[in-house]
Amino acid sequence: MLLFKNVTTLFGENLYVAVDGAFIKSVSHERPAGEFEREIDCAGKLMLPGFYNTHTHAAMTLFRGYGEDLPLQRWLTERIFPAEEKLTAKAVYDASMLAIAEMISGGTVAFTDMYMFPEETARAVAETGIKANLCRPIISFDPSESIKDSPRMAEAIALFKEWHNACGGRIKIDMSLHAEYTNTERSCREVAECAKELGTGMHIHLSETKTEHQECKARRGGCTPARFMYDCGVLDVPTTAAHCVWLEDDDLPLLREKGVTVAHNPVSNLKLGSGVMPYRKYRDAGINVALGTDGAASNNTLDIQKEMYVAALIHKGVNLAPDSVTAADVIESATVCGARAQGRLDCGKISEGYRADLILIDATTINNIPSYDPAYTTVYSANRSDVCLTMVDGKILYENGEFLTLDIEKVKAEMRYTCEHYFD
Amino acid sequence: MLLFKNVTTLFGENLYVAVDGAFIKSVSHERPAGEFEREIDCAGKLMLPGFYNTHTHAAMTLFRGYGEDLPLQRWLTERIFPAEEKLTAKAVYDASMLAIAEMISGGTVAFTDMYMFPEETARAVAETGIKANLCRPIISFDPSESIKDSPRMAEAIALFKEWHNACGGRIKIDMSLHAEYTNTERSCREVAECAKELGTGMHIHLSETKTEHQECKARRGGCTPARFMYDCGVLDVPTTAAHCVWLEDDDLPLLREKGVTVAHNPVSNLKLGSGVMPYRKYRDAGINVALGTDGAASNNTLDIQKEMYVAALIHKGVNLAPDSVTAADVIESATVCGARAQGRLDCGKISEGYRADLILIDATTINNIPSYDPAYTTVYSANRSDVCLTMVDGKILYENGEFLTLDIEKVKAEMRYTCEHYFD
Repeated sequence: MLLFKNVTTLFGENLYVAVDGAFIKSVSHERPAGEFEREIDCAGKLMLPGFYNTHTHAAMTLFRGYGEDLPLQRWLTERIFPAEEKLTAKAVYDASMLAIAEMISGGTVAFTDMYMFPEETARAVAETGIKANLCRPIISFDPSESIKDSPRMAEAIALFKEWHNACGGRIKIDMSLHAEYTNTERSCREVAECAKELGTGMHIHLSETKTEHQECKARRGGCTPARFMYDCGVLDVPTTAAHCVWLEDDDLPLLREKGVTVAHNPVSNLKLGSGVMPYRKYRDAGINVALGTDGAASNNTLDIQKEMYVAALIHKGVNLAPDSVTAADVIESATVCGARAQGRLDCGKISEGYRADLILIDATTINNIPSYDPAYTTVYSANRSDVCLTMVDGKILYENGEFLTLDIEKVKAEMRYTCEHYFD
Repeated sequence: MLLFKNVTTLFGENLYVAVDGAFIKSVSHERPAGEFEREIDCAGKLMLPGFYNTHTHAAMTLFRGYGEDLPLQRWLTERIFPAEEKLTAKAVYDASMLAIAEMISGGTVAFTDMYMFPEETARAVAETGIKANLCRPIISFDPSESIKDSPRMAEAIALFKEWHNACGGRIKIDMSLHAEYTNTERSCREVAECAKELGTGMHIHLSETKTEHQECKARRGGCTPARFMYDCGVLDVPTTAAHCVWLEDDDLPLLREKGVTVAHNPVSNLKLGSGVMPYRKYRDAGINVALGTDGAASNNTLDIQKEMYVAALIHKGVNLAPDSVTAADVIESATVCGARAQGRLDCGKISEGYRADLILIDATTINNIPSYDPAYTTVYSANRSDVCLTMVDGKILYENGEFLTLDIEKVKAEMRYTCEHYFD
C-alpha cells in the first residue's frame, strides 16, 4: 500500500489518499490504519484524477510541425496524405512511444486513438502502462463493396481479438468508421453490426468542418452526418464522436439519446480553421463532452492542459461571456467525462473504490504563485512541466522528471532517427 | 566577448553569433576571429530575439487566480478593485520581482507596464536586468479638474525624472492615460501636452470592450475612443494602445498615421470575454501589432509563448482560415514589433549591431520532437519550460533553470508570504 499525505484536491485539503494495488482504498481527513510501503508528501502540490485524451492519432507525432499554416485541403493533400503513404510499423511504434511519453509526462493517463498499424500502438501502450482505447479506422468509398470480408475489417477484428481487455483491461479495442464522407451507407451499417456483435464501442469523426457537414446534407437529401450515423445504427453502441463543430440543433437529441460522447478538440479545430464548437450548448443539452488533442500534426502537442486552457478561454471570448465556462467544467471534461467516454466507469475521480489514476501538479512553480484555488491554478496557470507525478492503476509511471516504464533517451533517439530518414 | 556556435535561427543554420558587450558583433557562417571568454554550443536549440510583452501590470501577479470565471464588471468591482485598495509598495515590489522572474525564465527580455507604485517596479527592473517601459497611469473623472498640478501627475513626472533612460537605457518612462472612460477631455489633453514636453511616449487602454467603446460614442456624439484620443493629441507621441478589440474601420488610418502600436492581448481578451481582435485586418492596414499578456489576474500567466500560440490559433479558427496568420507573423509581433513599440530600434533582431537580447529554446524536449521548422516549433509546440537561456544587453539573466540576477527561492518565499497576508 502507498499513502499520499497532505493532499489538496479540487474538493478538500489536508487529505490522506491510500492506494492499494490498482485502486484508491480511502480518501480521508484522518490518517488511515495500516502499513504503507511508501508515503508521498503532497504539500505544495495539487492532486487531480489523471487526464483523458479522447481523440488522438498518437503516431502523428511523426508529422508534428510538418505542414503548417495551410488550408485544410492543401494540408491534407500536399502534406499529410503523401507523408502517410510512407508509414511503416516501426515508424508508428516509435512515434507512439514518443506520444505516450509526452502524454504521461503531461498528466494524461488514458487516450483514445484512431490510426493505421494500431497493433504497434497497442504494443507501446502495453509496455508503458498507460491506458488506451484503440481502433483501426474503416474507409470505404465503393457503394457496392461489402466491408465484411475485406482485409481492413479482418485487421480490425484481429486487433480486437488480440488486444481487447488486454493488460488487465488497460487496453480496449473499439470499432471505427473514419467519417461519413469517407464511407458508404453499407460500410457504416456493416461496421455498426460488427461492433454490436463484438459488444464494443465506436470511434468516428463527425461534422468537423462546415464543408464536410454541408456536402453530406447535399449528398443525402438534407440528412446531417449525425442523423446519417444514427440511422445506420452506428450510435447504437457506446460512441465517441470527434470534433462535432458543426452539429445542428436537431442533432443534439440524437447524441443525447444514444449517450454519445463528443470529443472536443479546441486547438486542432482552431489551427485547421474548422471553427469553434459550441461547448456550453452541448453540455446544456445533456451531452457528455470530453477533450481531445487530435494528432500532433494539427495541434502540435498532446497536452490536455492546453486543451483545457484553450477551451476555457475561447468559449468565454467568442461568446463575450466570461462566465459561460468555468475551470471546473473543463476539468470535468478532461477527467470523468473522458473516463465515461472510454467505458471506464471506475475511473476519473479521486474516490474510494475508483482506480488509482492520479496526478500531482506542483503549485509552487513561478507561474503558479499564488494559488488561491486548485481549479484555477490547474486550468489557467499550470503547464505540462508542472506535472510531477503520474500514476495509472496504482503504478507510478512518471515522477519528478523520471519515466519509470520507458527509457526516454532511447525513445527520443529512435524517434529522431526515424523522422530524419522518414522522407528518404 | 562571447560566442554562440552551431546556432539555428529562423533564417539560417550552423551560424556563429558573436556578442561584444551589449551588442551583437557578428552573425556569420564562418567562425569570427578573436578571443572569446565563453563559447556556448547551441546544437539542438533555436535562437530567437527575446520576446517583448508590450502590455502588462506586472504586480498583478498578486491577484493571479484570485477572481475567475466572472463577468468583467463583477470581476472588477467585487474582486480586483477592493483588492487593489490594499496595495502597498512592498506588495508591488514583491509581485514585480515574481513577475520579472516569470518573464525572464519564459524568454521575455522587455515589458511595458502600467500600474500603481511604478517606482517599486522600476527598482525590480533595475536589479534584475530586464528592460521595461514603465508608467504611472492617470485617471481623472472631474471635468473641472486640471491634472497638471495634481499629486498623480507630480508622481508621473517624478518617476520620469528619476528613472527615464536609467540603467543604460534599459528603463524608459512613458506617460499614461488609463483609458478614455476613466478620463476627461481636459486630462487627456494635459497628459498629452506633458508627454510632448518631456519628449516621451504614451501607454493607454483603448476600445477593450464593446460596452466601453459604445458608451464613448454615446457620450461623445459618435466619436470613437481612438478618434477622441487622436483629437486630444494623445497619439502625437509614440503610443502603445492596449487591446483595441473594437476599433472601427475609420479608426485604423488614424492609428497608422500616428504610428500607434496596438498591443494585442489575446488571452486576456478571451478570458474576460472582451472578444477577438481582428489581427490580420490591423496588420494589413499597416499598423504595428505587438503582443501583451495583460496582468496575471486576467491571463493568468506572463507567457508570450502562450500569447503567440493563442494568437495564431484563434485568428485561424474564428476566421475559418488556417492561412490567415502564420507562425512568422506572431513571432514578428512578439519580437521586432514589440521593440519598435518601446522605441528600441536597435532591438528585436538577430543582426549585427543590434543589442544582444537573445534567447535559446530547447528543440529536443519531448514536445518539440521532431522539429522540421524553427518557427513552427517555437509557436506551436514549445513551452516556457523549453527556454534555456535569456540574455539582455549581452548579459545572461537565466540559464538552464538558474537565475543569475535574482534569488528565486527568496522571491518566491517573499511573494508567498505577501499573498498569504494580503487580505488580513
